Amino acid sequence: MNDFIYNTPTKVYFGKGKEKEIGEIIREYGYKKIMLQYGKASVIKSGLLDTIKASLNNSAIEFVEMGGVEPNPKITFVREAIAVAKREKVDMILAVGGGSVIDSCKYTALGAKADCDVWDFAMGKRKPIDAIPVACVLTHSAAGSEMSNSAVITNLELNMKKGCSTELNRLKFAVMNPELTYTLPAYQTACGVVDIMAHTMERYFTVCDDTDLTDRIAESILKAVISAGRVAVETPNDYEARATIMWASSLSHNGLTGCGRENYLAVHQLEHALSGEYDHVAHGAGLAVLFPAWAKYVYKTNVKRFAQFARRVWDIVESDDEKAAIMGIEAMSNYFKSIGMPTTLKEFNIPNVAERLADLCTYQKTRTVKSYITLDYKVIKEIFESCY
Amino acid sequence: MNDFIYNTPTKVYFGKGKEKEIGEIIREYGYKKIMLQYGKASVIKSGLLDTIKASLNNSAIEFVEMGGVEPNPKITFVREAIAVAKREKVDMILAVGGGSVIDSCKYTALGAKADCDVWDFAMGKRKPIDAIPVACVLTHSAAGSEMSNSAVITNLELNMKKGCSTELNRLKFAVMNPELTYTLPAYQTACGVVDIMAHTMERYFTVCDDTDLTDRIAESILKAVISAGRVAVETPNDYEARATIMWASSLSHNGLTGCGRENYLAVHQLEHALSGEYDHVAHGAGLAVLFPAWAKYVYKTNVKRFAQFARRVWDIVESDDEKAAIMGIEAMSNYFKSIGMPTTLKEFNIPNVAERLADLCTYQKTRTVKSYITLDYKVIKEIFESCY
Repeated sequence: MNDFIYNTPTKVYFGKGKEKEIGEIIREYGYKKIMLQYGKASVIKSGLLDTIKASLNNSAIEFVEMGGVEPNPKITFVREAIAVAKREKVDMILAVGGGSVIDSCKYTALGAKADCDVWDFAMGKRKPIDAIPVACVLTHSAAGSEMSNSAVITNLELNMKKGCSTELNRLKFAVMNPELTYTLPAYQTACGVVDIMAHTMERYFTVCDDTDLTDRIAESILKAVISAGRVAVETPNDYEARATIMWASSLSHNGLTGCGRENYLAVHQLEHALSGEYDHVAHGAGLAVLFPAWAKYVYKTNVKRFAQFARRVWDIVESDDEKAAIMGIEAMSNYFKSIGMPTTLKEFNIPNVAERLADLCTYQKTRTVKSYITLDYKVIKEIFESCY
Repeated sequence: MNDFIYNTPTKVYFGKGKEKEIGEIIREYGYKKIMLQYGKASVIKSGLLDTIKASLNNSAIEFVEMGGVEPNPKITFVREAIAVAKREKVDMILAVGGGSVIDSCKYTALGAKADCDVWDFAMGKRKPIDAIPVACVLTHSAAGSEMSNSAVITNLELNMKKGCSTELNRLKFAVMNPELTYTLPAYQTACGVVDIMAHTMERYFTVCDDTDLTDRIAESILKAVISAGRVAVETPNDYEARATIMWASSLSHNGLTGCGRENYLAVHQLEHALSGEYDHVAHGAGLAVLFPAWAKYVYKTNVKRFAQFARRVWDIVESDDEKAAIMGIEAMSNYFKSIGMPTTLKEFNIPNVAERLADLCTYQKTRTVKSYITLDYKVIKEIFESCY
């Protein structure tokens, strides 16, 4: 087991109707003037925004609104929000939405305390040193951003989608009501399930084989999510399934599944190139295509681990490790398909641009992506090609 | 899944040699004058205390010492420590030890900010409203106090051992080096393993059957600890086994294993009466006797859950639920025995005082203990009697 630091300071308020308490919770923390960020029509149509505003008003919390965060949130929007946050002197930012809105808020929070352009943080040119506190009312189970230390932002001018990881990105608190995800379409629900599984599996498939406890916790999360995912796609209003997926989204990405081993998130890096380039590709759907492709490419470097994954997560009964490993990868891919996910890049109507995507991943062949084996330009190109 | 609040703000620094960084870590937090609490000779003999003092001196952290915390820590010691903490105006308390030392520090921290006697908190007469920050260098994996919100204290005058749960009891940070547990005797190691398992199982056996994710996480922790426990008892210097047990001790009791369901800790309440009355009974050893006895008494109220426990945790292959349930309880009891734990109260050289212990648990028949089924005086007496 490698040394590690575990830091999950985000307080979670989980359960039915919890969003109605938001004003009260914020008042307990002592914040007085907040920024409210949200996406497009859905939170307005559903009445959620009105519920939240009513709660804020009841608790005499002043707020400024920044609606219109897009999926794959954009740096241009964040820059606007930073200007507003500075001008209005807000002391906290509340995200009402899923990973995109939360990530937009995280970047806004970092930028509002910085004197440089916030894109510098995404590019690793500068390190953030302070941030306004961020909290959320979660409406989508997927990104795990509600408890993670990372945030991803897209720069359309540069065709780049970049993450920034810092402990400053940990939310102060997260309000999580599974009922708020009832209205998600099956496709988005499935995308979330894949994202949660990918966060868990990226950390599971590493070079460290001496982390039995972390292994077993990861397998638990996978088994619970696989089962709940099937139910939620079929029966959107199943509270238990929605609750399992929502709580798993946080646990898969808050650090728990990575304790004691190296974490690369290699497939995420490949997928960020894909959905950074093609804005219509949902992150989870991109992962559903790329994860099995990546796994088929790397499993030979640790057949035993892939065989364990097959047996413990997919209940594969096969004594030969190599055969079991392959069967496990197939079971994963079949599962993604069974919940309505694509299995090839063709299904996105994307031309074969493996070279272009490999270029993006490697910054024009100037770097490699860490994984079990180092993924260089050639390997990444081959993985993308195998997805057509 | 029931509504829940999840709050684990304790930052964990986990790994080899981490205790050498204690001064630096404390300086980063900005504390200047601390109280150092520890137990008896072992931390002095091992050189750990010198290592910590050297680190504190290097970082110019002033400290006052309060050595001599006993197992089943005493309220009398805590009262002394509170007086010192107030007089010396310490801004933080560092526990160097296991659950006993940490709990002593937690009560000291609550009392140092209170104007009433700290025993009032234990008795639930008053609610604590503030506390000095507490942190630890952990030397024993068992109580999980390093991340929990609870603390237990013994009042010898009243022959009572009482817990106090409050979010103020959450440690600021915990330094956890599994190597520090190499010198623990096999018996103490096994006691720790039982305690960790009991923290997990107490929350597993509740009336809520709709918490698949929490179930599976609990099963993961149990499987990993069972396996690591066998190794650590045989091979005290096995880093991976010690690391698994240490990390499991935190996860089993920090709230994770209770998410979404009711938590009673009924067997702990029975055991506290036992080791409160008989100071020579180690908490884990008491639990090893009482847990199977309690399980045999209550399993019929939820045979399915005990059967799931048998199959998933103990790999019992038996299609009949009732038979499987009984086999699971037997497997648990046999495991405790296999790592050197007692299976009867006779082994502690305690006379049959079931009535006296049942009286203590129920405050002379004035209350019951919550569990699957409500445990009243009569039932508790029968459980204790079945342990002879």
